[in-house]
This record gives sequence, C-alpha cells and structure tokens, in this order.
Amino acid sequence: MQNQEIHTRFFSDEYFMKQAIKQAEIAYNNNEVPVGAVIVYKNKIISKASNQQETLNDPTAHAEMIAITSATNYNGGKYLKECVLYVTIEPCVMCAGATYWAQIGKIVFGSADTKKGFRIFNKNILHPSTKIYGGILKNECNLLMKKFFKKLRL
Amino acid sequence: MQNQEIHTRFFSDEYFMKQAIKQAEIAYNNNEVPVGAVIVYKNKIISKASNQQETLNDPTAHAEMIAITSATNYNGGKYLKECVLYVTIEPCVMCAGATYWAQIGKIVFGSADTKKGFRIFNKNILHPSTKIYGGILKNECNLLMKKFFKKLRL
Repeated sequence: MQNQEIHTRFFSDEYFMKQAIKQAEIAYNNNEVPVGAVIVYKNKIISKASNQQETLNDPTAHAEMIAITSATNYNGGKYLKECVLYVTIEPCVMCAGATYWAQIGKIVFGSADTKKGFRIFNKNILHPSTKIYGGILKNECNLLMKKFFKKLRL
Repeated sequence: MQNQEIHTRFFSDEYFMKQAIKQAEIAYNNNEVPVGAVIVYKNKIISKASNQQETLNDPTAHAEMIAITSATNYNGGKYLKECVLYVTIEPCVMCAGATYWAQIGKIVFGSADTKKGFRIFNKNILHPSTKIYGGILKNECNLLMKKFFKKLRL
C-alpha cells in the first residue's frame, strides 16, 4: 500500500468513527442509550468511552464526558486543543459545554440529534476555536439508537 | 426557639448558601476559581463540592458536576427531582445541562455570571420542571471571585 492509502484506511474519520461505534455497541449491550466516543491525538486514540448513565447511576456519565476526563488524565493538561472528539451522536448541551472548557480542537459526530443536540439551544456553546463536522457514518450511528428505542417500546 | 424560628435559622436559603460559600473558600485556597455547591434533600445536605478543575486536571470538574455525581451516588437514583442545588455562581452551560439530565428540582445561585452563565446562551437549557432563583448572598459569593481574579492579575 502507498502511504496515502494507509493513511486513508487507518486514520480516516470513518476509521475513528467505527471505533466510537464499537463503544456505542458496548453501551447498547449494557442497556444504555447507545452512544460511544473516542478522543484522538495525532492519529492515536487516547481515550474511549461508552455512555454509562445507568451503569454508574450518574446523569453526567455521558460517553463524551468520560472520554474528556480520561483524555485530560492521559494528557496531563486540562485542555485538548489538538484533539479530535469522535462521537456517534451530536453532543448534548452538557457535553458541548464540557468541550468548551477543554477547548477541544475538533468534534466529529455521526448522527445529528434533533431533540437534545446542543445546536437546538445555541450553536455558539462550543469554544470559538473548536471545529465541528457531522454526518460521518450517520446511518450506522443512528441504527443503534433506533434499535435501542424500538427495544424499549416492546 | 419556636419551630418556625429554628426552621428559618437553620434551613433557609441563606444557611445553605453559606455552606456553598464554605466550599467556594476551599476552592479559593486551592487556587481554583472559587465556586462551591451543595445539594440538599429534605433540608439535609447530601453532597457538597468545590471547583476542582486544576486539582483534578479535569475541565469537567466544576463544583456542580461533582456535587451532582455525589448526590446521585448517595441517592441511589440518577434523578434529583426533590433536591435543591445551591451554587455560589450561576451555572455554566455544562452544569446547567447536567441539572437537566438529573431533573433537579430547584437551583438557587448566588451571583449571576454575565460571561459564562447558561442564561446567556439559552434559558431553556434547564429541565422544564426545574425552578431557579438567583441573588442569594450574591455579594459574598461575588467577593471571592473578585478577590481571586485580582490575585491572578498581581
């Protein structure tokens, strides 16, 4: 493989989102709302987390929150300016607020959240230096959510 | 003392805000932005926390977040519907978002935050059933912040 091909295959947004989806699958299997996140620094995953609100009995234990705490722990600094957060569903207000304090470099989310996504409330919640992209593997990300809420209604 | 007098003296908003201020003083003494919080259930403090962003090297470690996690741990349930959060400074977006997920019954804050307070972004971030009151001992709450930022500039 050429270097460019290796880079595309292993270090693409799709590759890292697939790792976030694996975390969402862990959440799904634990009867949690299936959201997963990974944080990447220089093409290396430095933290990964699944939503654990029920498991930890903690309303703040969203995948992004755990991943941010874990990444800053790894990083040794409270800012994540050069990091990318990959998360399967658009962050809520709480998690978007946390990325503000971490001054995270970039957010890549899968599926938009038209009910609880932070953009419904105010797009400017993010830090001015944070870039944001959505729609990466959105169908795969959303499929888990649909399955979860369908199971809840049974 | 009559029962009513005891109630007023020991279980007033001022009394609980003073306990939150004690937590803010701990933050101040640890060179943290001096914010403190307590969570009260049926007139009993079930959690208290000071801001620990620097101490824990964690951008999510605001006083309110720690107090919420701690209160749900005490409570054994992820909701805090019958609880009151006393916090010395108006919550930021992240913390207001956390109170949404906890469905906290009431928020009582001391001083408004005209720069990072959640109300600048959207007043509807709170859960529809959450009541909110501000201005309790606001001068005392704000004094610590003024002292802190004055010290930073020296």
